[in-house]
Amino acid sequence: MAELLKGAPVAVRLTEEAASRSAALSARGVVPTLCLIRVGERADDLSCERGLLKRAASAGVDVRKVVLDATCSQGELMAAVASANADPAVHGILMFRTLPASLEEAAACEAIAPEKDVDCLTSASLAGVFAGSGEGYAPCTAGAVMHLLDAAGVPLEGARVTVVGRSLVVGRPVAMMLQAANATVTMCHSKTRDLARACREAGVLVVACGRARMVGADCVRPGQVVIDVGINWDEGAGRLVGDVDFDVVEPIAGAVTPVPGGVGSLTTAVLMTHVVQAAERAAARAEGE
Amino acid sequence: MAELLKGAPVAVRLTEEAASRSAALSARGVVPTLCLIRVGERADDLSCERGLLKRAASAGVDVRKVVLDATCSQGELMAAVASANADPAVHGILMFRTLPASLEEAAACEAIAPEKDVDCLTSASLAGVFAGSGEGYAPCTAGAVMHLLDAAGVPLEGARVTVVGRSLVVGRPVAMMLQAANATVTMCHSKTRDLARACREAGVLVVACGRARMVGADCVRPGQVVIDVGINWDEGAGRLVGDVDFDVVEPIAGAVTPVPGGVGSLTTAVLMTHVVQAAERAAARAEGE
Repeated sequence: MAELLKGAPVAVRLTEEAASRSAALSARGVVPTLCLIRVGERADDLSCERGLLKRAASAGVDVRKVVLDATCSQGELMAAVASANADPAVHGILMFRTLPASLEEAAACEAIAPEKDVDCLTSASLAGVFAGSGEGYAPCTAGAVMHLLDAAGVPLEGARVTVVGRSLVVGRPVAMMLQAANATVTMCHSKTRDLARACREAGVLVVACGRARMVGADCVRPGQVVIDVGINWDEGAGRLVGDVDFDVVEPIAGAVTPVPGGVGSLTTAVLMTHVVQAAERAAARAEGE
Repeated sequence: MAELLKGAPVAVRLTEEAASRSAALSARGVVPTLCLIRVGERADDLSCERGLLKRAASAGVDVRKVVLDATCSQGELMAAVASANADPAVHGILMFRTLPASLEEAAACEAIAPEKDVDCLTSASLAGVFAGSGEGYAPCTAGAVMHLLDAAGVPLEGARVTVVGRSLVVGRPVAMMLQAANATVTMCHSKTRDLARACREAGVLVVACGRARMVGADCVRPGQVVIDVGINWDEGAGRLVGDVDFDVVEPIAGAVTPVPGGVGSLTTAVLMTHVVQAAERAAARAEGE
C-alpha cells in the first residue's frame, strides 16, 4: 500500500501562505493582481478559470479578466498584452492556451513583460529556469511537482530521479528544478529505449508524457516515489486517468499521487504564490525608486 | 585499445565548410565578421585570441578586435558592446571572460544583440538551447561535443548518455542538445551519489566537471564512447590533463578523446561556423527587407 500524495492539503497550505503575504501587501496599499487573458469560450479554459477565481479569492489575489472574441486579430491580442504590461496595478499575466490557430501564440507569449510572466511563457523565464538564476517564474505545473515532493519530505539531494516527458511546460523545466535541488536526473521521452529500466533506476519518478497509463508495473520498484503529472480522459472508463497506471503501480510504490487529486490540485495555488511574489518584487522596486 | 577521437580533422572539415560558405557570402558582398571584445591582457585570453585569429583567416571570417584597458569602466564596456550591436558589418560578437571583478559581466553579456550572440552569452540564446528552438547559438564547446560525436558516427537516438558537470557553458547545454538528438540523458554533478554507476549505465559519457582525472576506470564500461571536455593544468606532471584519467580509461573504452587534441581543438572552428551562419541570416534578413 503506497502512501497517497494528495495535492489538496499542500494547496491549502500554499494558499494560506499566499493569503498571509497578500494581507501584508494590502496593508502597504498593494493588492496582488493577476490579469487573465482568455480568447474565446473553450470549455477547458472556462473550467480552469472557475478554479482559478476561487483560489485567487482564498489567496487574497485580485483577478482582472480580459476576454477577447475567438475571432480577434493578432493586433487586438497584442494590445491586450501591452495594456496589462503597462498597468502598474497588474503584477502577473496569465494567457490561456492553446490559442485559436489564427493567432500567433509564440509572439503573444513573448510579448508578456518578463517580470509579470507568472507561468513561464517567455524565453526570459525559460532561461531563468534553465540557468537556475532565481529570476522569473517556473511553469506552475513544474512548480507544483516540486512543492508536492517538498511537502512529502522526499530528500532530493543526491537522489536519482527519472523524468518521463520533455515538454517545455513540465518535463524539461522540472528536470532543471530537480537538478537545481541537487538530484541526479535522467530525462526520458518517446525515443527512450528500455523506458522501464530507466524508470526503475530512480528513487523518484516524475511522469509527464501525456499518455494515459504509459507507466506500468514494470517501471516501478518497491518504495519508489511516483509523481503523476498526466491528466487524460479515458473514454472507456469514463473518467480521468494519469500517465501512470495507478492500479498496478500503487501496490508496488512507496508513495504515489492520485489522478485527479494530485499535482493538478496544486497548480492554481502555485500560480497565486507567483502572483504574490511578483507583487512583492514590484513593491520592493517601487520603494527602491 | 580505444579509438582516439581527435578534434583536428573535424576542425579542418568544419573550417573548410565555413570557408566555402564565406566565399559564397563574399560573392554577394558580405564578409562574415566577428567582433572580439577583450578587456586587459590576460595570458589565457591572448592565447585564445591567437588561435581564433588563425582559424578565422582559414574560415574566411574577418575579425575586428576591440581591446579595452583592464581598468575600463562599465560604461566603456557597454559602449563597446552597443557599438558592435549597431554595426551592420558585424555579424558575431565574442567577449572574452572572465572579466575583471570591477565589471558587471552578466550585464555586459546580456547587452549583446541576441542575433550576434555566437557563444551563448545571453538569456535569449540560453532559452533557445533549452527550448531546442533552433534560434540563437549554443556555447561553442557544447557544439564541439556534438560535432565530435557526429563525426565519429556515434548514434544518439535512443542512446543512454551521461553528462558529468552542469555548467551553463557545457554541461547543461550539451545535455539539452543530446536530448534534442533523442538521447536519454542523465545529468550528473558534484552532488551525485555513486557517480561511477551512473557513468557506466551510459553508452556515451560526456565529462565536463572541471576536475582533473575525476573520471577513472570504475566509471567506464567496455566499448563506451568517452568525450572529455576538461582542460586542467597538472602541476605535478607539468602538462595539460582532462577530467578523464586517460591512461586508465583508454584501455577499457571503445573510443575516447585525447586532452589536448580533442574537444578543445574544435571550439574555434565551431565559433566560425556560428559567425558564418549569423552572416547568412543577416544577409537573408537584409534581402527580405
